[in-house]
Amino acid sequence: MNAMTPPELLRRLFDAAIASAQPALCVPPHLPTPAELGAGRLIVIGAGKASAAMARAVEDHWPGPLEGLVVTRYGHAVPCERIAIVEAAHPVPDAAGQQAALDMLRLVQGLRTEDTVLCLISGGGSALLPLPLPGISLADKQAVGRALLASGASIVEMNTVRRHLSAIKGGRLAAACHPARVITLLLSDVPGDNAIDIASGPTVADPSTCADALDTVRRHGIALPASVRAVLESGAGESVKPGDPRLARAEARLIATPQKALEAAAAVAREAGHAVHILGDAIEGEARDVGKVLAGITRQVLERGQPFPAPCVLLSGGETTVTLRGQGRGGRNVECLLAFAAALGDHPAVHALMGDTDGVDGVEPIAGAWLGPGTLARAWAHGLRPLDHLAQNNGHGFFEALGASVRTGPTLTNVNDFRAILIGAPA
Amino acid sequence: MNAMTPPELLRRLFDAAIASAQPALCVPPHLPTPAELGAGRLIVIGAGKASAAMARAVEDHWPGPLEGLVVTRYGHAVPCERIAIVEAAHPVPDAAGQQAALDMLRLVQGLRTEDTVLCLISGGGSALLPLPLPGISLADKQAVGRALLASGASIVEMNTVRRHLSAIKGGRLAAACHPARVITLLLSDVPGDNAIDIASGPTVADPSTCADALDTVRRHGIALPASVRAVLESGAGESVKPGDPRLARAEARLIATPQKALEAAAAVAREAGHAVHILGDAIEGEARDVGKVLAGITRQVLERGQPFPAPCVLLSGGETTVTLRGQGRGGRNVECLLAFAAALGDHPAVHALMGDTDGVDGVEPIAGAWLGPGTLARAWAHGLRPLDHLAQNNGHGFFEALGASVRTGPTLTNVNDFRAILIGAPA
Repeated sequence: MNAMTPPELLRRLFDAAIASAQPALCVPPHLPTPAELGAGRLIVIGAGKASAAMARAVEDHWPGPLEGLVVTRYGHAVPCERIAIVEAAHPVPDAAGQQAALDMLRLVQGLRTEDTVLCLISGGGSALLPLPLPGISLADKQAVGRALLASGASIVEMNTVRRHLSAIKGGRLAAACHPARVITLLLSDVPGDNAIDIASGPTVADPSTCADALDTVRRHGIALPASVRAVLESGAGESVKPGDPRLARAEARLIATPQKALEAAAAVAREAGHAVHILGDAIEGEARDVGKVLAGITRQVLERGQPFPAPCVLLSGGETTVTLRGQGRGGRNVECLLAFAAALGDHPAVHALMGDTDGVDGVEPIAGAWLGPGTLARAWAHGLRPLDHLAQNNGHGFFEALGASVRTGPTLTNVNDFRAILIGAPA
Repeated sequence: MNAMTPPELLRRLFDAAIASAQPALCVPPHLPTPAELGAGRLIVIGAGKASAAMARAVEDHWPGPLEGLVVTRYGHAVPCERIAIVEAAHPVPDAAGQQAALDMLRLVQGLRTEDTVLCLISGGGSALLPLPLPGISLADKQAVGRALLASGASIVEMNTVRRHLSAIKGGRLAAACHPARVITLLLSDVPGDNAIDIASGPTVADPSTCADALDTVRRHGIALPASVRAVLESGAGESVKPGDPRLARAEARLIATPQKALEAAAAVAREAGHAVHILGDAIEGEARDVGKVLAGITRQVLERGQPFPAPCVLLSGGETTVTLRGQGRGGRNVECLLAFAAALGDHPAVHALMGDTDGVDGVEPIAGAWLGPGTLARAWAHGLRPLDHLAQNNGHGFFEALGASVRTGPTLTNVNDFRAILIGAPA
């Protein structure tokens, strides 16, 4: 039907997923035109792991004057000429992040109606813009954050509390830009792609309240420092609510999401003549168990033509977790792929590729790996025992020894995991 | 569209799945007729956890004379009048099982062409019929079994070794019945439903060889007792191969399987007007992570209409595992359901039921549990924190406190887990 080999096809799907989220490609179509701006200034702000790359994409495509300040994680800076790039700590905030938050609020003071603020938000932005409300110390806020993490509260619940302790989140940054127009470009890595949950929504109206935050705290039995309790009980922590006139000229656009990345891959697969099924853009769970479940579904396709007839491509995304058990070289995607292989066994009709869209699965500059018919047979022939490598969290060691690693280089973006399983025609 | 409530529908699906595998219902259609037998004798043999109940179903429906011997697990005997029921140990074999194996071989000696042997095989039969080949002690065989379990070898690989160390498995029991006709009724709980893998195939021709067994042993670095090595290297352990004339009159019928159980539930759901998708009949993995993956797929259906449009029913089976972490009252199905609930949250359009088809999820006579919109809200109102109960493996404690346990009583069968998720129309 087409000239690509299955591994080539899988690699093209992965590349398409990444490309859909790369700032250089996904930012430019969402920039305002100079005509829209007229005589107004363009101020660029933002926070997140991909935000420096987003700033660079703005500089490369915006023909007029601009100025700005964007904060990203240490090591994630990208050279910019007109927008100041600041690096700060993630996931535990530091003073550099707090200074950047103050500077950003100062930068947007005194804007006029004809000015436009372009806010570039991506994953990690919450930790990179720490600014406790007056009366709350950074230490108190960190203590609440740690207690929330240990409580088992969901991300949504944690963010509800955080937004009510911050001087910049929950719409406050956009309110500070008033009366200027605010366009927020969002690169999402959170399940559900809810704008208020990406970097705790500094430019997005927040329907939740101090009372909701107190409910969460009570529900999870979290002890609050007195300063934090006072802010929540007095209502001093109230975020900016929907309908607030200061946000009337603020709009948010999701420009890259895990789902869009899967859809981009699906489009390439369909163009190559394949039936495609997206299982989910937010699949979570221990990586090795997710791999087993995917093997079970793949087997059902192969043996029963359920829930989908073969041939087909199964795509999924999300963010699995790895409980460290060994001393190997691994990452959640290669761990998932190795468990998938061990559970399914070699199959003449199955190829798969799993990788991290940021280009780094785990800590090494290896994005992921692929497998095909005969991968396990080659492993055994090389003396590589899949379950031993799984026990050691050594996915990279296993697939690299087979020449099956996938490398992309730094992608300057992150829409989480990418998994593609190509199931051939029944024998 | 129909008068049943969602919980009633889910319970009917579960009941249909169980009914499809209950010996009283699934054995009778497969019995030969007295006319087929003519003047020959009917001898009933068998082994497995459900095999006494299968024997009882034969006694209840067979009008002519019969005799027999069936071995089941301690506590799984069912009163029979003409077929002797013996109890033995599972999963580690004991002397009672070995004696039963010897008695069974003796019972089928000297049969004639006009005689028929009905062999009733179900899960657990392998351990219940231990009979090492001459020269191998039960202790040596147990040592190999333990080493295989610890090696990470797959079930298929383990069974390949076991069949070449046994005097009764790998087709040898059927060969001993020669020249009588042999009809084997199989109640399967193994992934793939391969007859040779159910109870190690005592009446089924075995395409694998001693050389395959030695390959497996070498591959997993297992040290063999000298007696075992001698049997494999000399070829003395060779099982009965396809084409062996002694098996020319032996046939095997899969009468109940996890897939048939899911299909039975699917038929009831379709009759009630629902679209049904079977994700897999052999889904494995840690129960809580399987629950998270199912929540991820359910969310994709709800939010994107992918990979299936809502409304629909998602069915799956298999055998998940639980790593014990706490002191709670649980089982793999309620653990999976609790994790599903915690990951998805209450949703107005989602109901689910998960249960063990043997009626016992874990160790208590509770088959499973169900949930619907508001289940988590009620839990919080009762002070039940889902993640705390999950941390304690306390699924039964959690759902019982909400009146959401599902009880079936002993079902006398086992086709593993049953999971049904009913997703309503989009809002």
